[in-house]
Amino acid sequence: MPTLSSRMNCVANFFTYETTKSVVVKSWTIGVINRAVQLLIVSYFIGWVFLHEKAYQVRDTAIESSVVTKVKGFGKYANQVMDVVDYVTPPQGTSVFVIITKQIVTENQMQGFCPESEARYRCRSDSECQKLISATGSVSSAGILTGRCVKYNQTLHTCEIQGWCPAEVDTVDVPIMLEAENFTLFIKNSIRFPLFNFEKGNLLPDLTVQDIRRCHFHPISQPFCPILRLGDIVKFAGQDFTNLASTGGVVGIKIGWVCDLDQSWDRCVPSYSFTRLDSVSQKNSISRGYNFRYAKYYRHGNGTEYRTLMKAFGIRFDVLVYGNAGKFNIIPTLINAVAAFTSVGVGTVLCDIILLNFLKGAEQYKAKKFEEVTEVNLPPAVSTSPVYRSSQTLGGRSEEKQSTDSGAYSIGL
Amino acid sequence: MPTLSSRMNCVANFFTYETTKSVVVKSWTIGVINRAVQLLIVSYFIGWVFLHEKAYQVRDTAIESSVVTKVKGFGKYANQVMDVVDYVTPPQGTSVFVIITKQIVTENQMQGFCPESEARYRCRSDSECQKLISATGSVSSAGILTGRCVKYNQTLHTCEIQGWCPAEVDTVDVPIMLEAENFTLFIKNSIRFPLFNFEKGNLLPDLTVQDIRRCHFHPISQPFCPILRLGDIVKFAGQDFTNLASTGGVVGIKIGWVCDLDQSWDRCVPSYSFTRLDSVSQKNSISRGYNFRYAKYYRHGNGTEYRTLMKAFGIRFDVLVYGNAGKFNIIPTLINAVAAFTSVGVGTVLCDIILLNFLKGAEQYKAKKFEEVTEVNLPPAVSTSPVYRSSQTLGGRSEEKQSTDSGAYSIGL
Amino acid sequence: MPTLSSRMNCVANFFTYETTKSVVVKSWTIGVINRAVQLLIVSYFIGWVFLHEKAYQVRDTAIESSVVTKVKGFGKYANQVMDVVDYVTPPQGTSVFVIITKQIVTENQMQGFCPESEARYRCRSDSECQKLISATGSVSSAGILTGRCVKYNQTLHTCEIQGWCPAEVDTVDVPIMLEAENFTLFIKNSIRFPLFNFEKGNLLPDLTVQDIRRCHFHPISQPFCPILRLGDIVKFAGQDFTNLASTGGVVGIKIGWVCDLDQSWDRCVPSYSFTRLDSVSQKNSISRGYNFRYAKYYRHGNGTEYRTLMKAFGIRFDVLVYGNAGKFNIIPTLINAVAAFTSVGVGTVLCDIILLNFLKGAEQYKAKKFEEVTEVNLPPAVSTSPVYRSSQTLGGRSEEKQSTDSGAYSIGL
Repeated sequence: MPTLSSRMNCVANFFTYETTKSVVVKSWTIGVINRAVQLLIVSYFIGWVFLHEKAYQVRDTAIESSVVTKVKGFGKYANQVMDVVDYVTPPQGTSVFVIITKQIVTENQMQGFCPESEARYRCRSDSECQKLISATGSVSSAGILTGRCVKYNQTLHTCEIQGWCPAEVDTVDVPIMLEAENFTLFIKNSIRFPLFNFEKGNLLPDLTVQDIRRCHFHPISQPFCPILRLGDIVKFAGQDFTNLASTGGVVGIKIGWVCDLDQSWDRCVPSYSFTRLDSVSQKNSISRGYNFRYAKYYRHGNGTEYRTLMKAFGIRFDVLVYGNAGKFNIIPTLINAVAAFTSVGVGTVLCDIILLNFLKGAEQYKAKKFEEVTEVNLPPAVSTSPVYRSSQTLGGRSEEKQSTDSGAYSIGL
Repeated sequence: MPTLSSRMNCVANFFTYETTKSVVVKSWTIGVINRAVQLLIVSYFIGWVFLHEKAYQVRDTAIESSVVTKVKGFGKYANQVMDVVDYVTPPQGTSVFVIITKQIVTENQMQGFCPESEARYRCRSDSECQKLISATGSVSSAGILTGRCVKYNQTLHTCEIQGWCPAEVDTVDVPIMLEAENFTLFIKNSIRFPLFNFEKGNLLPDLTVQDIRRCHFHPISQPFCPILRLGDIVKFAGQDFTNLASTGGVVGIKIGWVCDLDQSWDRCVPSYSFTRLDSVSQKNSISRGYNFRYAKYYRHGNGTEYRTLMKAFGIRFDVLVYGNAGKFNIIPTLINAVAAFTSVGVGTVLCDIILLNFLKGAEQYKAKKFEEVTEVNLPPAVSTSPVYRSSQTLGGRSEEKQSTDSGAYSIGL
Repeated sequence: MPTLSSRMNCVANFFTYETTKSVVVKSWTIGVINRAVQLLIVSYFIGWVFLHEKAYQVRDTAIESSVVTKVKGFGKYANQVMDVVDYVTPPQGTSVFVIITKQIVTENQMQGFCPESEARYRCRSDSECQKLISATGSVSSAGILTGRCVKYNQTLHTCEIQGWCPAEVDTVDVPIMLEAENFTLFIKNSIRFPLFNFEKGNLLPDLTVQDIRRCHFHPISQPFCPILRLGDIVKFAGQDFTNLASTGGVVGIKIGWVCDLDQSWDRCVPSYSFTRLDSVSQKNSISRGYNFRYAKYYRHGNGTEYRTLMKAFGIRFDVLVYGNAGKFNIIPTLINAVAAFTSVGVGTVLCDIILLNFLKGAEQYKAKKFEEVTEVNLPPAVSTSPVYRSSQTLGGRSEEKQSTDSGAYSIGL
């Protein structure tokens, strides 16, 4: 059973403080290097980590966003006046939508049998069509091949198909709807940083109803106007409108919200940028542009169904919202301050290498820094008497060699 | 060529261990401070880093999710019974869809010429309309201005447009479909954490077919019921249903999966939350709510096309799934354990400042902690004889000054 | 006022270098352990942190992506040849689309009154239907109950509803469109890493037009072919096509771009993987598969509207693009190199525990490592005379006890 005093001793032994014993080298050379390295590390932490990277902030990257879009403008196409309902699809005003700029229309298609329209299905007899089926399968570009060769027009015969008839001819050259360049896109974007419960929208409070009716976005003169001319968007994305409208393409409208919530509410503003997303289409000859087919279905009085098939070329717009917000918080501040403190000590590694290897009197510094103790010169038994201990220590010291080994820090000893 | 013994020496020199020489201060004051600081740091690591932040886990944030939605309910609108196919768009049951709650219908529109419907296009002569064109362009709100002034009704004349006729009158006040409040939304959400190959769905195994037919989601009494009343969703998002249904709006349904996979499979459950996403619409008078136009296209027997234009107001629902999962892994555990160990040493910085500056006998502590070596008192030559070395060391010691420089830790000495 | 020399002294005091005093233990046991631990830590940093985790790179995770899809193929369903326009919805070629594989069609629905089609609405008198209304509400599965009991067919009566009539009968067993297995999906995916302004697409430059016309994706033989057979996709996702086409389901096509931009441009290639996203549907009996309803609206010559209601079962494909790219950057390289350096020192903790507790001669090592200073044996006054200081130091030393306290490192002393 431990006595009270031995217990007290135990507690006293626990409440001690252990700090490293240090060698202070009074040398201008190493002193200047040391302080310079420390200054560098401190500057890095203050300049980069704290001021640039804002390490004292906690950051919310899970931005919540909602985008509502609305296109305005009228175009003329195929003797019709086209309005938003005609050329925007899907109509719901979501963040992804297509402006149709060119259409190849095939009217009055009905289920039935008719000749193929593509040149490679030309034939002179049924057997040619049957050969084609056995070679490439029964699926042509417009329907299912029946194996018969039928009259296409006055001079030509092609293989017959079953499907929606007549077959589409999509090799014709149709004009584009040029008015699309002047259409305007209104974007309403609300964001929220759930961590800070911070909400904001791209309709900034200083925008008046007048502004919104008249303004057009421009990166320098009107950076916060939520109304964008399609022609401008395409230009800002580095594309040619006529070209893009003709082949079709995908354009990204990026809205960035990078906010420092330690600053005033007014300074958290959106920044718009534009890029062509389907860049692969520009370089690759295999699949240029963007198009899709859709149809409007009708019924005759007798109930038979017919449809108008459209091959639509258009510009697809993707509104992409990204962002993050930072706000002062004590935990990251403390963690990074501690990291900064500890990192200052890293300079010692470099300075030790210089001190123990390259400086005049390196051997002396080594002798001072390192104390050596070897297995062999340990006395065989260990006494706990303090008197013996001191003498042992003294004895130990007299035998002690000043190590010249610099451990990990000495190179090429 | 090195001899064998010199080589052995080299190897022996390599297999040494270097540890810092420490000063143990037996002082109650500093001892208690030291242990308190260490306790604080250890508590922080165990309490915050390990238990709260679960730093011993590897985390998968790349949640894979699939959402299928299905709305149920019947409403009465404009003498029609509206079913899901009529009021939900798009119909595919994706995570974003609109419930149409109010519609302004313009029937039997055909391509042609007709008077504008808006008051600001009122005119008395063709020249007024031509002036309008030169002032604001030829595009009106309903079509392309022709420059003629034509009869709108018994008393009024307005400028003529080319486009879909008759022009829409969207200033009328139409009722909302009140039944929408009682519509139910069934959400089927499957998630997967690819890193752990963990799959789960929001239809928990203890939900019976009976439950699913009858239950309605409630955050406290029915937190796992996948069937939500639209009125409830809007209420949980802090909105008034009648108001929202009238102006339109965007509501977010967030499903969170934050899972600790070290616990049992049953405890990884979804949590639902609701928020209005287009909050900008509430505060801003410029563009309130959410609406869009769409049309149904028909053909007369003679082939001419006509359409029914709808201006639809509705509630857009966005089902947003987020989440992450953690599971024990040896690598982050080790890294953070090491970080914890190293950080305990940071307390020394604070204690050194106290010890060397504020404690009684600070000078003695300094003398003990710091050993000084200056460039000038280095002997000119270095002997490798151990005898000389000891004496040099002793001589060195006799000249040695106890440094009172506390380095970085001594403030305002 | 400080004199020049005192000022110089101050500056000289500042430009000093403080390094820890070390004890070098020349023991094979601890030396080998020490170097082994250091080797382990260095290997970890070089092997895992630098080579495997590429900690020398800065990483861009904000991949920008655009997906355009195009399905090809013809199917036969209900005596019709179905083309892409008929069975793909929505038609815009976005990353999420449905291939309809099975349809229950209800033709010629009109607004009106008609009997319910479901068995549970069977009745013999109006009062039964009124009882039903008061029990479960007036909403049936096909419309709004009127409370009347009407003739359904020769033998049965059911409650009458108001809504789209006739009511849908969705309990019939309809076939699936088997040809869907052979449909092909062409995916055009462009990605961009904005941080490095790196753009690439999944149509790799070595794909010729010939390849693209003929190839079909296969994970081993054709891993970069952008044309995928639907049957293959479903198979790679571990599903049975006939089954999936019958119940409907959601399949994810994941395209991963994990790129090391320090390597050549050619080695940044996409990797395709496939998974069933609505896995909850497989296990749960409550809500199997995926289906939705949509309608085509028509008008009779007299203007009355009618529609064809479709209950569509299909496979929804979600093309999900993920990825990140790394490139050498000096800042993370430096930070991690410093972290590696500092971490090597962590081995000391382990070695100290062994050295001071388990090694032969542990007491001697302790004596060597720790110097003790206690509050009580501090002399009352501090002299600045170097002579007094040395003697004080010597005196201090004679009283000094070699501490056997190993601080945090000594366990169970």
